Amino acid sequence: MKNTFGNNISVTLFGESHGEVIGAVLDGLAPGVRIDEEYIKHELEKRKPRGNISTARRESDEAKIVSGVFEGVSTGAPIAVLMENTNTKSKDYSLFKDVPRPSHADYTAEIKYGGYQDYRGGGHFSARLTAPLVAVGAILRLALKNKGILIGTHIKSLHGIYDRDFMDLEADISMLDDKIFPTLSNESEERMIKEISEAKERGDSVGGVLECAVYGLPAGVGEPWFDSLESTLSHALFSVPGVKGVEFGLGFGFSEKFGSEANDPFYTNGEKIFTKTNNNGGINGGISNGMPVVFRVAIKPTPSIYIEQESVSLSRMENTVLKIDGRHDPAIIHRARAVVDSVTAIAIADAIATAFGTQFFGG
Amino acid sequence: MKNTFGNNISVTLFGESHGEVIGAVLDGLAPGVRIDEEYIKHELEKRKPRGNISTARRESDEAKIVSGVFEGVSTGAPIAVLMENTNTKSKDYSLFKDVPRPSHADYTAEIKYGGYQDYRGGGHFSARLTAPLVAVGAILRLALKNKGILIGTHIKSLHGIYDRDFMDLEADISMLDDKIFPTLSNESEERMIKEISEAKERGDSVGGVLECAVYGLPAGVGEPWFDSLESTLSHALFSVPGVKGVEFGLGFGFSEKFGSEANDPFYTNGEKIFTKTNNNGGINGGISNGMPVVFRVAIKPTPSIYIEQESVSLSRMENTVLKIDGRHDPAIIHRARAVVDSVTAIAIADAIATAFGTQFFGG
Amino acid sequence: MKNTFGNNISVTLFGESHGEVIGAVLDGLAPGVRIDEEYIKHELEKRKPRGNISTARRESDEAKIVSGVFEGVSTGAPIAVLMENTNTKSKDYSLFKDVPRPSHADYTAEIKYGGYQDYRGGGHFSARLTAPLVAVGAILRLALKNKGILIGTHIKSLHGIYDRDFMDLEADISMLDDKIFPTLSNESEERMIKEISEAKERGDSVGGVLECAVYGLPAGVGEPWFDSLESTLSHALFSVPGVKGVEFGLGFGFSEKFGSEANDPFYTNGEKIFTKTNNNGGINGGISNGMPVVFRVAIKPTPSIYIEQESVSLSRMENTVLKIDGRHDPAIIHRARAVVDSVTAIAIADAIATAFGTQFFGG
Amino acid sequence: MKNTFGNNISVTLFGESHGEVIGAVLDGLAPGVRIDEEYIKHELEKRKPRGNISTARRESDEAKIVSGVFEGVSTGAPIAVLMENTNTKSKDYSLFKDVPRPSHADYTAEIKYGGYQDYRGGGHFSARLTAPLVAVGAILRLALKNKGILIGTHIKSLHGIYDRDFMDLEADISMLDDKIFPTLSNESEERMIKEISEAKERGDSVGGVLECAVYGLPAGVGEPWFDSLESTLSHALFSVPGVKGVEFGLGFGFSEKFGSEANDPFYTNGEKIFTKTNNNGGINGGISNGMPVVFRVAIKPTPSIYIEQESVSLSRMENTVLKIDGRHDPAIIHRARAVVDSVTAIAIADAIATAFGTQFFGG
Repeated sequence: MKNTFGNNISVTLFGESHGEVIGAVLDGLAPGVRIDEEYIKHELEKRKPRGNISTARRESDEAKIVSGVFEGVSTGAPIAVLMENTNTKSKDYSLFKDVPRPSHADYTAEIKYGGYQDYRGGGHFSARLTAPLVAVGAILRLALKNKGILIGTHIKSLHGIYDRDFMDLEADISMLDDKIFPTLSNESEERMIKEISEAKERGDSVGGVLECAVYGLPAGVGEPWFDSLESTLSHALFSVPGVKGVEFGLGFGFSEKFGSEANDPFYTNGEKIFTKTNNNGGINGGISNGMPVVFRVAIKPTPSIYIEQESVSLSRMENTVLKIDGRHDPAIIHRARAVVDSVTAIAIADAIATAFGTQFFGG
Repeated sequence: MKNTFGNNISVTLFGESHGEVIGAVLDGLAPGVRIDEEYIKHELEKRKPRGNISTARRESDEAKIVSGVFEGVSTGAPIAVLMENTNTKSKDYSLFKDVPRPSHADYTAEIKYGGYQDYRGGGHFSARLTAPLVAVGAILRLALKNKGILIGTHIKSLHGIYDRDFMDLEADISMLDDKIFPTLSNESEERMIKEISEAKERGDSVGGVLECAVYGLPAGVGEPWFDSLESTLSHALFSVPGVKGVEFGLGFGFSEKFGSEANDPFYTNGEKIFTKTNNNGGINGGISNGMPVVFRVAIKPTPSIYIEQESVSLSRMENTVLKIDGRHDPAIIHRARAVVDSVTAIAIADAIATAFGTQFFGG
Repeated sequence: MKNTFGNNISVTLFGESHGEVIGAVLDGLAPGVRIDEEYIKHELEKRKPRGNISTARRESDEAKIVSGVFEGVSTGAPIAVLMENTNTKSKDYSLFKDVPRPSHADYTAEIKYGGYQDYRGGGHFSARLTAPLVAVGAILRLALKNKGILIGTHIKSLHGIYDRDFMDLEADISMLDDKIFPTLSNESEERMIKEISEAKERGDSVGGVLECAVYGLPAGVGEPWFDSLESTLSHALFSVPGVKGVEFGLGFGFSEKFGSEANDPFYTNGEKIFTKTNNNGGINGGISNGMPVVFRVAIKPTPSIYIEQESVSLSRMENTVLKIDGRHDPAIIHRARAVVDSVTAIAIADAIATAFGTQFFGG
Repeated sequence: MKNTFGNNISVTLFGESHGEVIGAVLDGLAPGVRIDEEYIKHELEKRKPRGNISTARRESDEAKIVSGVFEGVSTGAPIAVLMENTNTKSKDYSLFKDVPRPSHADYTAEIKYGGYQDYRGGGHFSARLTAPLVAVGAILRLALKNKGILIGTHIKSLHGIYDRDFMDLEADISMLDDKIFPTLSNESEERMIKEISEAKERGDSVGGVLECAVYGLPAGVGEPWFDSLESTLSHALFSVPGVKGVEFGLGFGFSEKFGSEANDPFYTNGEKIFTKTNNNGGINGGISNGMPVVFRVAIKPTPSIYIEQESVSLSRMENTVLKIDGRHDPAIIHRARAVVDSVTAIAIADAIATAFGTQFFGG
């Protein structure tokens, strides 16, 4: 189903960039789970544009829970989260209906929806819709945390600048949880922000790679074949605007290794089973093996740049040049972090509910 | 659903490596589509182990269609394809129930299924099950071909050896269709086979990267958000054993580019719209834009190697050393090509059926 | 999925009787369909409590469309409809958490949700949620009407009082569309209202049977086996609170007939195929045959009555007597009509989208 | 999905009346469930045509389990059941492609599948496909029985002849389990068989009403709104050929009752909660309340009768008269009992898996 994800825990998304209200409906969360509105705010803060390196559009981003929560606790009924659009400037966008922005959804939306789509601000395709996604993701992230399952994401690389690797996952995830610009090293943070600022100066944009770790996931989550944990996670991740690649563990790096180098040897301390390396990113045969689930997500540079670009006037079927005004991000990777955390929480929660029953999260 | 993929065109998979019969049920194909059993055989040939660089297990791989086809044409009812297992040697595998092979599904299956799984030959996790997947994929590949949509996959790289890039897609795909070892350049074929043979000599294995192109797909296929074309394709691709990464267009390479380099400018010849580059791999906003859909798939080295490995005896909870006998592939990437072609056909056909109705394929 | 219905056209429902906002998300409607807010109001009027024979709770019932509609026309994106709860009196209901109302959801909700449910006014189980269901159903009813497919429902019987049969379906459906109390005969209307009023006097309630006809549905809608048109319709109908029976055509009356009496003979006027009788209610083998689809729906008497009833105190595990105050309907069957019309529209629209593609409804 | 039912426990059906093999794939059953092939045979016996009152087509009805079972126990992988068609007489049926049998699927299949369907013996619509449905249903019925949940169905009425009511459910279900012709009273059995025989003499057929009870189902199964237990059960039941009505508890009888008569008062013995009556058939608000789930299913008379009927030649678009030869049942209600038991088991098992997790059935 187009705007619904998940089998036992599901999320339905609706809204447009310039509509009155956007929102998401989270269904399947067990009753009795404490809902912390402060935590939702905390997560939305990470997604907010801020400072010099983001769009000038500033939304209050207040998430209002209108159902499924009673006296601060989930009831078992669907949780609907609504967010109002307040800071909309519709006049900025009307051009793109005729002259589509390269690498954006303008053209495919025009083709698919026969010209009936709400083109203002990207309409239903706008990354604005990731705000309610972050809100419901935050609910699940906290529900997972309460069961000892932690999710954290950092910017692994940005235009040739690399962050340090994950080391102590619990500490690293805890640190990332408090950072607005999500790197593990302060030096990479500075260099990356500088790179983004410089791109902005030139009216250009940059992409990068996010790396996400899920710590504490029990073995046995994920299904053979079509609902492998990789399938479920990648399905969710590729629904995030700008994501163009997903790799687990060594991922594409496997092609440089022999089996003898790539395999993760098992060992035991007599009580639990571990692997010495984690080249498989915590997943064997589509099922979690108890090691951290680690994957990387490629984020393309924001397509809305201020530099002149070649495009086409659809009405006149003529080649033309496009010069974009308006408010756009020179990079979304730092903001996309919160979205990756969220869809990861959604996918992991659904996979757990399928493997162990929705009761797993119960109060 | 665990062993079922797809919404409007779906595939359900069943069987085990050492069971009597394995098979797949394809539902949703429009009536009136000619079913060519020769083409199914042709595709199964590509998946077959052969020569020096594959497992010694040789199956007849005869796919029997037992429903949904009448007088050579699809009826609209589900198409069930059955394949018998004939060449099974169960004694080879009993060890792995206690001492799991590193990076294989042995351990996670033991945990998930509480010791009840059929452990012989990998049981339900065996790559043997990709045979019926190739059979039903072949049916859809041909149905797509009849509508001008061509799918082709080559080995892009194998342990540092690179094939040439796609050039003339129609010609390249046609050439690949006739090749058992799927490279575009004969030189890379030779070098890759040599690399695999050498790994085999040492009892080791290699992985690599497959690159797939879908040519002729109309614009407008794929949905916003959760059923983006990338989501649907990656969901299917990550269900293939050994796949650990999927990237579209530039994929992870986007992180090295500025937006001004990465964006695909539109142009027109007055009749149709094209993009000058195809860095987005034919997909914008989750929807096909009419350019070829191009993606790469990372395949890890086969985990079953003959070199001694560290593992654990689950019954004794002791560290131990594992030495594998039996019949294993030093590389599966060339055989996996047929599987990638097939799941791509399944995912694309389902996305088309959702976008345009199942009638699209009708006779 | 619990609160989502439909495959290609789907509805997701959320909210509680005493929450701030209730709503529904309609996904899969083709772009270009004119959305008539007046028609939505018109349908909501039919569901509204009014006069002497309904609850005293009066809601403004204003349905606000916040997404998926642009310049009065569907965009192809999900259509979210929100309705505020304004007239809530929470104090009326707190008793039922401990002493459940017989035949109501109070007890099963308490068991299922472990005491975390929002018990006020029936919470998520409240028939109040049928309001947004009617709103999205109205959108689809109109979309169907634009394609010549008409849906109409009358009260076939109410506590021994029978309405006349459908005769001229187009005329009858048109008449019903304008009636608040949906009978075909004015005499039955008067007698039924009198019966309800008398039950109300005694603090009692009555149920009845609704009969629904779908006129103009083309042959070929519905699938063999699990998505038979009867399966899809009954699935939707049994989700309506109070529905306890569904029968198609002769339904339970078939048990009194021989095949020779029950079969519907085919005939032709040389251009089209008809059946002489319509005992099968327009459906053969789970698929529409081009004749009107006709079914009946049993609605039980409203369980909330003012007469003393035996119940149990769950906290004390003691038998007790329950005396209900508050605002309740002595009959909901006339209001349920609009809900049956709506879920019928949803189920039929989804079945059409599956059979013919979502384009069927396109603008 | 057309030929797949269920969310967490699912069944996929395939095959045609005159194809080589028919079958079903059962997915989602927990590992460790003992599979009793004798019980499957026992259930298939009940569905078999026999004696004077059934079709002369006799199939061996041997169900072969080819996957998902290892050493007599479920593995957690999909269970595929195959059955060969051996006794097929294709020449009997070719007429119906041009001159459809009234009230049969011949006409709608022709319209829907554009003439490509396998028309022999009803093709994919043939009740022959209920055989594998009974086989997989038997697996789930036994799994339910092992958890204390019993399912039993009797012929409540057949052309004006009524069986006695359920009394002691455990004893009655146990008795029905051993009966080929499923009545609770021997006198009704005799009279019903006589009625069927007399109809057969005249070349006619009869229908009737089945009544099914599910005993021992815990409270809390079923979901609010769209996956109400009634929705799930009716969805499955209406997929059985010939079913035209489903009612729970009093069902259509509710229309004759006041709320004060219809409501089921709660009472307690200090340990458990019961209802004094069970007019709601064990379901409140779509969720099981711990009382037996009781419902009735209307089965229409077999449409294939030997008496001349009016029909149409589709090729000539002319009215004509149809005289059927071949092998047909004068009644299927006694055989349909096993199918109703089976789809009930499937629907109940899926609802339990959704409510309590698939582990519920675990070994």
